Amino acid sequence: MKKSNHIDQYGNVRMVNISEKSVTLRKAVAIGTISVNSDVISSINNKLNKKGDVLAVSQVAGIQAAKNTSSLIPLTHQILLKSVTINFEIIDLDIICTCEVISEGKTGVEIEALFATEVALLTIYDMCKYIDRNMIIKEVKLLMKKGGKSGDFKREK
Amino acid sequence: MKKSNHIDQYGNVRMVNISEKSVTLRKAVAIGTISVNSDVISSINNKLNKKGDVLAVSQVAGIQAAKNTSSLIPLTHQILLKSVTINFEIIDLDIICTCEVISEGKTGVEIEALFATEVALLTIYDMCKYIDRNMIIKEVKLLMKKGGKSGDFKREK
Amino acid sequence: MKKSNHIDQYGNVRMVNISEKSVTLRKAVAIGTISVNSDVISSINNKLNKKGDVLAVSQVAGIQAAKNTSSLIPLTHQILLKSVTINFEIIDLDIICTCEVISEGKTGVEIEALFATEVALLTIYDMCKYIDRNMIIKEVKLLMKKGGKSGDFKREK
Amino acid sequence: MKKSNHIDQYGNVRMVNISEKSVTLRKAVAIGTISVNSDVISSINNKLNKKGDVLAVSQVAGIQAAKNTSSLIPLTHQILLKSVTINFEIIDLDIICTCEVISEGKTGVEIEALFATEVALLTIYDMCKYIDRNMIIKEVKLLMKKGGKSGDFKREK
Amino acid sequence: MKKSNHIDQYGNVRMVNISEKSVTLRKAVAIGTISVNSDVISSINNKLNKKGDVLAVSQVAGIQAAKNTSSLIPLTHQILLKSVTINFEIIDLDIICTCEVISEGKTGVEIEALFATEVALLTIYDMCKYIDRNMIIKEVKLLMKKGGKSGDFKREK
Amino acid sequence: MKKSNHIDQYGNVRMVNISEKSVTLRKAVAIGTISVNSDVISSINNKLNKKGDVLAVSQVAGIQAAKNTSSLIPLTHQILLKSVTINFEIIDLDIICTCEVISEGKTGVEIEALFATEVALLTIYDMCKYIDRNMIIKEVKLLMKKGGKSGDFKREK
Repeated sequence: MKKSNHIDQYGNVRMVNISEKSVTLRKAVAIGTISVNSDVISSINNKLNKKGDVLAVSQVAGIQAAKNTSSLIPLTHQILLKSVTINFEIIDLDIICTCEVISEGKTGVEIEALFATEVALLTIYDMCKYIDRNMIIKEVKLLMKKGGKSGDFKREK
Repeated sequence: MKKSNHIDQYGNVRMVNISEKSVTLRKAVAIGTISVNSDVISSINNKLNKKGDVLAVSQVAGIQAAKNTSSLIPLTHQILLKSVTINFEIIDLDIICTCEVISEGKTGVEIEALFATEVALLTIYDMCKYIDRNMIIKEVKLLMKKGGKSGDFKREK
Repeated sequence: MKKSNHIDQYGNVRMVNISEKSVTLRKAVAIGTISVNSDVISSINNKLNKKGDVLAVSQVAGIQAAKNTSSLIPLTHQILLKSVTINFEIIDLDIICTCEVISEGKTGVEIEALFATEVALLTIYDMCKYIDRNMIIKEVKLLMKKGGKSGDFKREK
Repeated sequence: MKKSNHIDQYGNVRMVNISEKSVTLRKAVAIGTISVNSDVISSINNKLNKKGDVLAVSQVAGIQAAKNTSSLIPLTHQILLKSVTINFEIIDLDIICTCEVISEGKTGVEIEALFATEVALLTIYDMCKYIDRNMIIKEVKLLMKKGGKSGDFKREK
Repeated sequence: MKKSNHIDQYGNVRMVNISEKSVTLRKAVAIGTISVNSDVISSINNKLNKKGDVLAVSQVAGIQAAKNTSSLIPLTHQILLKSVTINFEIIDLDIICTCEVISEGKTGVEIEALFATEVALLTIYDMCKYIDRNMIIKEVKLLMKKGGKSGDFKREK
Repeated sequence: MKKSNHIDQYGNVRMVNISEKSVTLRKAVAIGTISVNSDVISSINNKLNKKGDVLAVSQVAGIQAAKNTSSLIPLTHQILLKSVTINFEIIDLDIICTCEVISEGKTGVEIEALFATEVALLTIYDMCKYIDRNMIIKEVKLLMKKGGKSGDFKREK
C-alpha cells in the first residue's frame, strides 16, 4: 500500500496540505450509466416528461453540482472550475452520461467529474421516477485524468 | 406510459404541485456499492487512511447530503428529514452502503436516500483515490419505499 | 404609516416572530421583463445559444432560486414550497417571465416568486450577454398574492 | 449574430471553457432602482423599519449574493471577488442602488454586480412590504465593465 | 450516564429519529461575549468602523447562521425557525450577545441559538480585527430552553 | 485608533478591496475549549456516544465550516484553502480544539481558523447535549497568524 509522510498517527480527519504542489492544467473525464425502461426512453426522446426537458435539466444539475463539490464531499479542496461539459448518449435502455471537467490548480478534478455524473444521473432518476421505479445507476467511474504529480490516468478497456 | 393531468403541453420545467397531497410517514431505503482493491479494504479496516476514518467521514457526508438534496437535484421539493441512517458492509472487495431516510410530509424521500448513498460512496472514493484509481461506484438503486399515494415499493430479488 | 407592536425601539435587525400566525394556503405570482435585441430573440427562438436552451436553463435557475430564498434575502423565513412554475412569453424584444409559487404555512411567498423571477431573468442575461450587452431587466413586481392575515393582493392594471 | 467556435451543434448546456483566457483585473458596475411610496421613504430615512436598518441589511445581502452568484446563476464560473461596494441614493420615491465589483481572473464580473443589485433591491422590498405592496424593481442594468478580451463597455446615456 | 435505546452498538454516525416526537413550541436563549480593547468599543459606539455598522451586520450574520445551522452542524435536524432575535449589550470592554430563537417542531432550537451567537460574535471579530488582534470569544452557553420531552432548562446563576 | 484611507464617510457596509495586496502564504492557528462534565468525557473516550464518534464528526464539521466561512461571515473574502487540520486534546473536563488553516492569497485565514474552531466545538456540544446541558464554549481565540502586510502575530502567554 502507498505510504505517505502525511499520515497522522492519531487518525485525525484532515484536509491534506496542497500548498507545496504546483499549478498545472487539470482535466478529468467521468462516465456513468442509468438503466431505465422503454417508457422512460420514449418520454425523454419525445420530450414528454411532465417536469420538462429531462436531459437539459440534468446537464444544469450536473454543472451546478461540479461547482459545489467541496461543500458535499468533505475533504476535497475548493477549486475554480474553468469548464464543465456533460453529454448523454442513449444506447437501448441505457442512458450514458459523460462529464469532462477542466481546471488549473494544485489538485485534480476527478471528484468534480464523478460528482457531476452522479447528480446528472440522479436528476434523470428524479424526473422519471413516476414512470419507472426500477431504474439503476451503475458503473460511475473515472475514464481519464490529466495533470498533477501523480501522473496521468486512462482506464483500460 | 403513465399519463398525468399535470403535463404542461409547452414542455415547461416545473416543480410539480404537491399541496393537495396528504401528509404521511415516508420511508425509503437505497443501496449502492463501491468496488475497490484489497489495499483500500486493508486501509479502511485498519483505519490507516491518511485522511482519517473513512467510513465515519462518509456517513457524515451522506447525512449532510440527504439534508441538501433539494439544492442539488433541481425539481425535488424541500423536505424536513426526521432520520437518516447509513450503514456499510464489506464483502470481499465491495463496500456496500445502505441508507434509510424517514420523513413526514407530502412527498417521498427516495431521492434523498439515493443521493446520500451516492455521496457516501464518492466520499470513500475521494479518501481512497491515492491508493486505487480503478474504483467503480455501481448499482445505486432503491430497495424499498413506504408512504404516499403511489403505493409502497419493494425491489424484487 | 402602518404601526406595529413588534417595533424594537433600539433599531435591532430581527426576523419577525410568526409563530402565532395560522397556517394557510399561500400563493403569489410575480412578473418581470428583460428587454433584449433581435439577435437574442433569434438565438432563443432557434435554440442557437452556445450555452444551451436558454429558457429551460432559466426555468431551472428560477426554481432553484425560489427554494433558496431564505439564504439570500436575510430576514425571510424558511418555507417549504409546494409548487414553483415559471413561464416565458416573448413579445417583440421583451421576454416576459411569470412565476407562480404555492406553499402552506405561516408566511407568504411573494419574495420567493419575485426572487425566482429576478434569477430567471438574470440567467437569460448571462446566457445572452455575448450577443447583447445592453439588455435591461425591468418591472419586476408582484401580480397577486393570496392567503394570510394581511389580505389578498391583486395589482391594478 | 456573433458566431462562436464553442457552439455545440447538439444544443448541450455547458459551462464555457475559459482556461485559455488571460488573467486581468476585472471591474463591473451595475445599477437598479426600486420605486416605493412616501411611507417607505420616511421609514428608511428615519430608520423606523420594524426589522432594522433597511439599507445596511440590504448592503449585507447584496455583498453575500455577489459571493454566491455561481451557485444561483447556473452557467457562471466561480470567481474570487476582491471587492464589493453597494451604494444607495434616494431621489424622490426612487431608491437607486449602484454596485461595483472588482476581481482578477479569466472571466468578467458583470453578473455578480447585477445579482448583488437585484438582491439588495429585493431585500429593501422584503423589509418594506408591510408598508407598501406596490413597489416595483426596475431598470436593473450594467453601467460599465472593464477588463477581458471582449473589450470595455460603458452604457451610453 | 444517560442510557438510550437508540444506541447503535456498531458506533455508526446517525441523525437520530425524531418522527415519534410531538410537535411543541420550542424556544432557546443563548449568550456569549467577546472581549475587545477600548478602540474597538469607541469604533462601534461611534459607528466609525471602516466596513460599516458592526452590530447591524453582526445581527444579520447571526440570523442567517441560525437558518443555516443544519448545513453546518452535521447531525442536527432541519428546522423552520419562526423567530430569531439578537441583542447586544456593551459592558466595559465586553460585548455581550444574547440570541433568542423560537420554532415549532419535534426538536429543540438550542444549537440554532448557540450557532447564531457564535457567528454574530465572530462577525464582530472580523470587522474589528484591524483594530485589535487580541479579542477573545468567551462563555458561549445556553441560558434557557423551553418545550420538548427532555424538560425545560434554565441555567443557574 | 488605526486610521484607514478606505474609510467610507457615509458608513456604508463594504467588502474591503484587496486587489492591490500581494499573494503570500497565509497560515493561522486558532484555539478554543469546551468544558463538559465527566460523563461526556467518558462517552467520548469510550466512543459510546449514541450519534457516533464525536471527535471525528467534529473534525469533519470544522473542516467543512472553514471552507464555508465566506458564506457565513458577511464581509470576508472567498479564499481557496490549501490545508485544514483540527486536533483535540482532553485535559480533565476541558476538550481543547486547535485548528490550523493554510492558504495562499491576498488576505489572511484567521477567520477561517476561528470559525472552524467554533463549529467543531459546537458539534461536540450538539452530540453530547443529551448527556450534559451545562457545557460552555470558552476562550475561542487566535494563537498565531503568518503572512500578509499587517505582520505576523503570536499571542503572548
